[in-house]
Amino acid sequence: MAAQSNPLIDDSFVDFLLYSVLDAESLCELEAYQQHSKETFDLYLDSLRRFARQDLLPTYKPMDEEPPVFRDGRIHTHPALPRLFEQMVELGVLTASRPESVGGQQMPMLVNTLSSAYLMAANLSAYGFIGLTRGAAHLIEAFGTDEVKERFMTKMYEGEWTGTMALTEPQAGSSLGEIATSATPTDDGHYLIKGSKIFISGADHSITENVVNLALARIDGAPDGTKGISLFAVPRLREEGGSLVSNDVAVAGMIHKIGWKGLPSLAIEFGDEGDCHGWLVGEPNQGLRHMFQMMNAARISVGVNAAATASAAYHESLAYALERKQGRKLGTQGGEQVSIIEHADVRRMLLRQKAIVEGSLALLGTVSRYSDISEHGTSEEARERAGLLLNLLTPVAKTFPAERGFEANALALQIHGGYGYTSEYLPEAYLRDQKLNTLHEGTNAIHSMDLLGRQVMSKGGAPLRALAEEMGSTIARAREAGCDPELCTALEEAVATVASTTVELGQRGMAGDAEGMLGHSWDYLDMFATLVIGWQWLNMAAVARAEPVSEERKRATEAATQYWIRTEIPRISHLANLCRTNEDSYINAKAEWF
Amino acid sequence: MAAQSNPLIDDSFVDFLLYSVLDAESLCELEAYQQHSKETFDLYLDSLRRFARQDLLPTYKPMDEEPPVFRDGRIHTHPALPRLFEQMVELGVLTASRPESVGGQQMPMLVNTLSSAYLMAANLSAYGFIGLTRGAAHLIEAFGTDEVKERFMTKMYEGEWTGTMALTEPQAGSSLGEIATSATPTDDGHYLIKGSKIFISGADHSITENVVNLALARIDGAPDGTKGISLFAVPRLREEGGSLVSNDVAVAGMIHKIGWKGLPSLAIEFGDEGDCHGWLVGEPNQGLRHMFQMMNAARISVGVNAAATASAAYHESLAYALERKQGRKLGTQGGEQVSIIEHADVRRMLLRQKAIVEGSLALLGTVSRYSDISEHGTSEEARERAGLLLNLLTPVAKTFPAERGFEANALALQIHGGYGYTSEYLPEAYLRDQKLNTLHEGTNAIHSMDLLGRQVMSKGGAPLRALAEEMGSTIARAREAGCDPELCTALEEAVATVASTTVELGQRGMAGDAEGMLGHSWDYLDMFATLVIGWQWLNMAAVARAEPVSEERKRATEAATQYWIRTEIPRISHLANLCRTNEDSYINAKAEWF
Repeated sequence: MAAQSNPLIDDSFVDFLLYSVLDAESLCELEAYQQHSKETFDLYLDSLRRFARQDLLPTYKPMDEEPPVFRDGRIHTHPALPRLFEQMVELGVLTASRPESVGGQQMPMLVNTLSSAYLMAANLSAYGFIGLTRGAAHLIEAFGTDEVKERFMTKMYEGEWTGTMALTEPQAGSSLGEIATSATPTDDGHYLIKGSKIFISGADHSITENVVNLALARIDGAPDGTKGISLFAVPRLREEGGSLVSNDVAVAGMIHKIGWKGLPSLAIEFGDEGDCHGWLVGEPNQGLRHMFQMMNAARISVGVNAAATASAAYHESLAYALERKQGRKLGTQGGEQVSIIEHADVRRMLLRQKAIVEGSLALLGTVSRYSDISEHGTSEEARERAGLLLNLLTPVAKTFPAERGFEANALALQIHGGYGYTSEYLPEAYLRDQKLNTLHEGTNAIHSMDLLGRQVMSKGGAPLRALAEEMGSTIARAREAGCDPELCTALEEAVATVASTTVELGQRGMAGDAEGMLGHSWDYLDMFATLVIGWQWLNMAAVARAEPVSEERKRATEAATQYWIRTEIPRISHLANLCRTNEDSYINAKAEWF
Repeated sequence: MAAQSNPLIDDSFVDFLLYSVLDAESLCELEAYQQHSKETFDLYLDSLRRFARQDLLPTYKPMDEEPPVFRDGRIHTHPALPRLFEQMVELGVLTASRPESVGGQQMPMLVNTLSSAYLMAANLSAYGFIGLTRGAAHLIEAFGTDEVKERFMTKMYEGEWTGTMALTEPQAGSSLGEIATSATPTDDGHYLIKGSKIFISGADHSITENVVNLALARIDGAPDGTKGISLFAVPRLREEGGSLVSNDVAVAGMIHKIGWKGLPSLAIEFGDEGDCHGWLVGEPNQGLRHMFQMMNAARISVGVNAAATASAAYHESLAYALERKQGRKLGTQGGEQVSIIEHADVRRMLLRQKAIVEGSLALLGTVSRYSDISEHGTSEEARERAGLLLNLLTPVAKTFPAERGFEANALALQIHGGYGYTSEYLPEAYLRDQKLNTLHEGTNAIHSMDLLGRQVMSKGGAPLRALAEEMGSTIARAREAGCDPELCTALEEAVATVASTTVELGQRGMAGDAEGMLGHSWDYLDMFATLVIGWQWLNMAAVARAEPVSEERKRATEAATQYWIRTEIPRISHLANLCRTNEDSYINAKAEWF
């Protein structure tokens, strides 16, 4: 209900973020993006906005209600998908961010991230086929030989075939070192692949004739653990004598996911009949390293999905709060009932959603911009600094929108009252969709370990120092622009608290107390992410004061900034205290106490 | 999976709570319960535990997967229900807490609450028919004339007919004053009822032949608003000439709820053909007052449902964490993978669930005990004091298990990793079930207004003073028992903070700033509930030290107490600060800023 008029994401916010806050036009000064301008960015952005609202969104609920069917060994996806996929290919979504050399438009990731967010908000499953295909093709582009590129990548970037990642195995959920799928060399240049994979999204469908799985496997005799894993392109059908024949890739089952219903998640078997060919991508035994070079993009993409899903639900609940009459204004009796947005607690739920959704989008835009500079910045120094910030912020960009987005989605449902508990309204579907984002591409807990155990400790603390400098600049700019000094000081103190807590935890870890350090990674991530979002909001508040924006934009930005800094930033000293005092209730808890 | 071996709730915890912490046996000294003893309590408790695990739980997933069907004007519920309902009637569940005068066992509510929690944890929809029938019959018992009791109540308490509450109307979700259903007197003693109701649970089914709706309606000419509402018994079929005939109650539609799938939620029409008879229950225009006398029980029941649903999911995730092998212990490499409970963050998620689930059950037991004393205590003073505490704590007993239970349910799903995102495992179903509890029987926000605007301000602050005394006694007992003095002091300071914040908000309200007071009701409820649960845990820790309990019980109780007081209690000063400084971002936010 009201779904077709849902804007999905606030256009004026995205324009503000893109051009006022993150100065997308300045990227056009870089050689890689010199063919671009505000005009080409807007053209692309507007075409995706229109398509998302007019074509994608109306298919969301039908696809949620009619999930794929597993019949006669094949997966039959929703009939609307082939046309939607074709339209997205025509719009250039598959290759917008790829270089001209492979047929792309070489669009900055910043523009690409904020444009594709609309598609994800409208129908994340339909967009999923595009994201998976681009990710898989990109891996081949980066590491494949010319022969492998010719065989697979071209058809994928043209949208003729789709792609997917085939990593997970039943015995090796988050522990990729346990992967057991085998690859036996042959004299014909390919390998024979044998093994079982699970949770493989889109490994079969009825959209295009073929799917290329980018699979992790072990070449016979390879070392144990993570150092013996290689990357292979394993198509469902292979070319032989000018036609496509079966490549011995079988669908063993379909997993009944609770959301993302348009995109099947499958158990697949490679080489049941000993005839599954795979082509090595990159160096032998370097599969995980290759994969991880693409991981930042995949993780940021999860964050965008999460922010987009929370945004769609936020707008759904905003429309409901404006329309639904219930009760009277506090302190009055009689007369007509008022829209529920007149109740302070409903505005609390809306402002909290807004702070999470738009704070997430701002962070995702920021890291996307760092990604652009890290690849195409004008100096080695600029590229390196952007790279440090990108790596440091990626765990936050993945986890914050997923974790707090789920909370925002629950608030959207709550605003709908009893109606929110029904499948006649959309919030419950968005809530189901959102939950995946705390789980896939590494659970959020794994990213908290990555942040504390790896990113903040890397290079003698250089990334964290770079981030503290960025935050310092923002605070200075906010003071200069006349933002509330109390908010500026609160953020400044929080930066110092996070920095000193990091040092203390690092020292504990170096002294050999691994649990005393990493046992606090969840609280550390929470603290760190809360600060990062506070920084994003203060930055936006500073820009909204300094730039010519509408009065409503200025006031709205100030309200959300005040909300976040007053309500969330004080939690940082509490979380820091838990880390510093080594709060050990769960760390020391024994299994038999539960 | 593993569902049939799920214990649902930890028996040894319930025994500890019932007999060591809340001294259920001492209730047998009261005249009302003198026919009872630990033996009769255990007999009842054990029979429900067995039935919940052996009979109810196996029907949970089938009922989730096959919701009722609306066909030919009737609702066809799951075929397992008639037998389950009959078994629960035979076990005495319908009338366990009712007096002997109406065929009950006059069991203390304390025992009844903790026993029925097992049934709710096993299959909350199946139990729902019992809870609704008892609630409706209880209203007739309390306010009906002998003729109305004879006509309806007896058959309901015998399980021959079911009952339900028919309050909500489409235009009047949470605003009962807007109710428009009409009641026209006739010369035959009954009224003619006409109007539409929505979200009516179990108003039709295929379990028993008849349903009695306890409906709110306005007698012709009654005053506007809440003062003109009366209560009626409106059966689906009425007795005429010794047989049952249609009473012109029609099912207009079935709502597609996302959980509680076994219990249909219906839109119904009274008197489409002008022939719907209703019998007045209680005084004219006193319907809401009558209803509200039963509201504490209904609200506590929502809390028990919430705690039970979170408990079932907690045990599901505990079993998974013990069984699932993944990764290695921190700081080690190679060797076999370990159970995921070996990872500190998994224990964090388990301990947090445990603190929420068992803290909720302790609170629900405590308020149930207050309910028993408020009705049957030996002195007027004891009854009054227990009544004050009961009323004060009821909003917390309803909202805390619902709000934090949802969080606990999400953690149970998260522990299952990717498998948690599938309907092959139970946590996603429990998560769906749980969400209703923040919405029904008044949204949680409405209860936050009740707590701050009504309960803590009532009788010159007497209820809050009584609670502070109770907490003071607990802290003294904990110190005496040798509990960690830091934890005792932290709770003591939190009591003072909540008390002084209450005074400040009350003064603001009395000065005429209603929004400045009630605009903070959400943070106030959060603060208040966090304190209450801290009190419950410290109390249990003190008892575990003083009484002869197992070493594991003692250590487990200490761990959860430490976790809650160190991790959650410090949030109180932050929340108090938001109230005191009148943080106004959302209070002042305008609709056009969203």
